[in-house]
Amino acid sequence: MTQYFATITQMNKMLGNVETWLDEAVSFAKAKNDFDPNVLLSMRLAPDQYTLLKQIQGACDAAKFCAARTSGKDAPKHPDDETTLEQIRARLQSVRTYLAAFTEKDFEGADQRLVPLSFMPGKGLTAADYACEMATPNFYFHVTTAYSILRHAGVNLGKRHFIGSLSLRDV
Amino acid sequence: MTQYFATITQMNKMLGNVETWLDEAVSFAKAKNDFDPNVLLSMRLAPDQYTLLKQIQGACDAAKFCAARTSGKDAPKHPDDETTLEQIRARLQSVRTYLAAFTEKDFEGADQRLVPLSFMPGKGLTAADYACEMATPNFYFHVTTAYSILRHAGVNLGKRHFIGSLSLRDV
Repeated sequence: MTQYFATITQMNKMLGNVETWLDEAVSFAKAKNDFDPNVLLSMRLAPDQYTLLKQIQGACDAAKFCAARTSGKDAPKHPDDETTLEQIRARLQSVRTYLAAFTEKDFEGADQRLVPLSFMPGKGLTAADYACEMATPNFYFHVTTAYSILRHAGVNLGKRHFIGSLSLRDV
Repeated sequence: MTQYFATITQMNKMLGNVETWLDEAVSFAKAKNDFDPNVLLSMRLAPDQYTLLKQIQGACDAAKFCAARTSGKDAPKHPDDETTLEQIRARLQSVRTYLAAFTEKDFEGADQRLVPLSFMPGKGLTAADYACEMATPNFYFHVTTAYSILRHAGVNLGKRHFIGSLSLRDV
């Protein structure tokens, strides 16, 4: 499996893990005075930090752009207009469906591709460096911060919810 | 550059980024009533979550074991006995020196290697899956949580401190 395809497959799995965290968040809200779980989407860990909603949108974008830019395609647009758990779940589903449609073949020639950086005109990264130095850390930054916001709020999550399933072999 | 070597190189850079976050933490402590910055090492985001100290130890271990296990070597031992910023900085330096000594050649044959999972007797992952599904998410989990604990405490950090330097090219 090429590294590009493996990275996208792993990001897709992680976004599926985020869906299970939201299930736990809803259970937590129900058990704790049956509060509206959508409130969690506006929580954050510092006043000048993104909310849970924006962290999930950021994770979706990091994964989507990693797939699009390393394969040389245009990414589908998402207007960031979600306000509810139902809507952010639909966003996760949309991005996961997009990622799942990629095949090994889409990344042929990726090692020769350069990815321009929109915030740094005239500069860019090789696709390999983009995946390793930018997309992957940025993706995990947003999923881990989303996880931390839920943990801080009291949602019952542990490392197994973060890591999710593994491609186990007998040794 | 092989993916294994690129991953270790990136983890080494990220641990260097953590050192700069600790510099910012010390500046923050000095500016805010000159409190003892070592206090930050005992902070956490949830009562049943690791402290900042343990998050940094966890990041160090994830990187060290990723390098050792994908290259088929024994990892150096670290007894997790740090209690101060000075000591955890020495731990970061020790692991960064270990990572920096790896070369491309150390990862020859890694694609044929299986990594046993200590918490799952009889089971393991290919070295490629171990790096992608276990070591990388676990590493970023700990570095991002360390970052979030500092952000939550008020330390003046932003995304640029998280991402750090990039291998820029002209495009």
